Amino acid sequence: MQLKPVLAVDDLNRFLETDFPEVNTDGKIFTVEAIGPGFATMRFDPLQRHLRPGNTISGPSLFALADVTAYVALLAHIGPMALAVTTSLNINFLRKPPLGPLLCTCNILKLGKRLAVLDASISGVGSDELVAHATATYSIPPK
Amino acid sequence: MQLKPVLAVDDLNRFLETDFPEVNTDGKIFTVEAIGPGFATMRFDPLQRHLRPGNTISGPSLFALADVTAYVALLAHIGPMALAVTTSLNINFLRKPPLGPLLCTCNILKLGKRLAVLDASISGVGSDELVAHATATYSIPPK
Amino acid sequence: MQLKPVLAVDDLNRFLETDFPEVNTDGKIFTVEAIGPGFATMRFDPLQRHLRPGNTISGPSLFALADVTAYVALLAHIGPMALAVTTSLNINFLRKPPLGPLLCTCNILKLGKRLAVLDASISGVGSDELVAHATATYSIPPK
Amino acid sequence: MQLKPVLAVDDLNRFLETDFPEVNTDGKIFTVEAIGPGFATMRFDPLQRHLRPGNTISGPSLFALADVTAYVALLAHIGPMALAVTTSLNINFLRKPPLGPLLCTCNILKLGKRLAVLDASISGVGSDELVAHATATYSIPPK
Repeated sequence: MQLKPVLAVDDLNRFLETDFPEVNTDGKIFTVEAIGPGFATMRFDPLQRHLRPGNTISGPSLFALADVTAYVALLAHIGPMALAVTTSLNINFLRKPPLGPLLCTCNILKLGKRLAVLDASISGVGSDELVAHATATYSIPPK
Repeated sequence: MQLKPVLAVDDLNRFLETDFPEVNTDGKIFTVEAIGPGFATMRFDPLQRHLRPGNTISGPSLFALADVTAYVALLAHIGPMALAVTTSLNINFLRKPPLGPLLCTCNILKLGKRLAVLDASISGVGSDELVAHATATYSIPPK
Repeated sequence: MQLKPVLAVDDLNRFLETDFPEVNTDGKIFTVEAIGPGFATMRFDPLQRHLRPGNTISGPSLFALADVTAYVALLAHIGPMALAVTTSLNINFLRKPPLGPLLCTCNILKLGKRLAVLDASISGVGSDELVAHATATYSIPPK
Repeated sequence: MQLKPVLAVDDLNRFLETDFPEVNTDGKIFTVEAIGPGFATMRFDPLQRHLRPGNTISGPSLFALADVTAYVALLAHIGPMALAVTTSLNINFLRKPPLGPLLCTCNILKLGKRLAVLDASISGVGSDELVAHATATYSIPPK
């Protein structure tokens, strides 16, 4: 599988701003950090609202991070026109997330004509301990 | 399996308010509607921030609804002291959610000493078409 | 969703025999028991080879039972021509299976043009305790 | 996470033979190939019974391969005494498997006191195209 991105980091950050403002309703919390062959990395800067008792980050926030990163990895390779839709997401919560910013890297496991499958690995910035791991499936509508 | 709830609807709504205010940061959007042997039902009243392009409700909101309902179903049966933690959640997005309030019903599939497994069915209020279906696992810490 | 089966129990048992002999390589271990609107039930009679230490039934056998029942439930509603393919399956092992025959009931959660989602509940014959629960996704090729 | 195996390839092949003969009922089809810090690789040599129409390998065989490899990866790091039990397994079927032998590599994502989470990547021998990807959870009983 020779995957090659067709959009760059700046394209994708701009796309999120113009076409997906809901993702950053509360300020710029999701930022595309890197794009490469078959993958994307995003950074999540949590706000007060993403925290939970015990000084940790909420499950739905980790879900949102995995979902948006997988979406960005997919768009980076098929272009911004495509209206991909999450059809399923399986997430394992592995360790209590640290209170600071998180990184999520998604790899494309399969990019078919109708379905794409990606995995997502989330860890704290500067740490290599996985906080959560997810696998997501996207449906790609016919053009 | 003879499951019997030990907490009532009012107990659980009060518990969410006092011990879990983060869940309702933006106003009362998650409400416990019903508790019974082996299940719980919650209502989600989405705000502007939970919407997505195409007049629909965001995936992370559906995830949050499934997660909080499963958590409430579990607490209803093991009591509010227990500090259950989501260890995994698998969600299938089945249909575009309608724009109004949603209901989620969770059934306990297994309530072990260390692990609980529940499923979650989400649909629009007054509709029997499933919008999403999830299975979640919780770790129950030793007392 | 008004689902209506187009094939009956006998049709499906015959189809398994003629088109899917691999499923019953070791004798008739998988039998369609019931078909109805949106669901199918199959019976699994385990052989020595499906057992595991501790007098239980192997995980792959439970997986196979969930997969073949979901496949049969799907074919019962779309007809035997369609070449549906499992794209994902998530299974939770809930209790140690009893040593005898098992029943699996699959419900269609979604039957789209390209994707179908089903859940599967496995228990011992005559028991209502769940042994395993699965959710499976099938890709339906264009005609 | 500094994971260090406590068993070697030969130990594990011997353990499978003596304590888990069911896995190789039909001859030696599952072989441990490599063990390293945090991972294990196994080889699967399919027989006629593992094939399916269209010259491919059955889903349950891929499930069994992922499950046994994850089990071996876990035992390699916690020792052969532990009686780990699969609690859940989520598998995505990505491409039609080639007809020959397959390799599966499992990485330990988390090794807790009570739960372990691993992922599994399956491809044909000599190919780097993923045929299937799985995530599995194991319960580790108290000693």
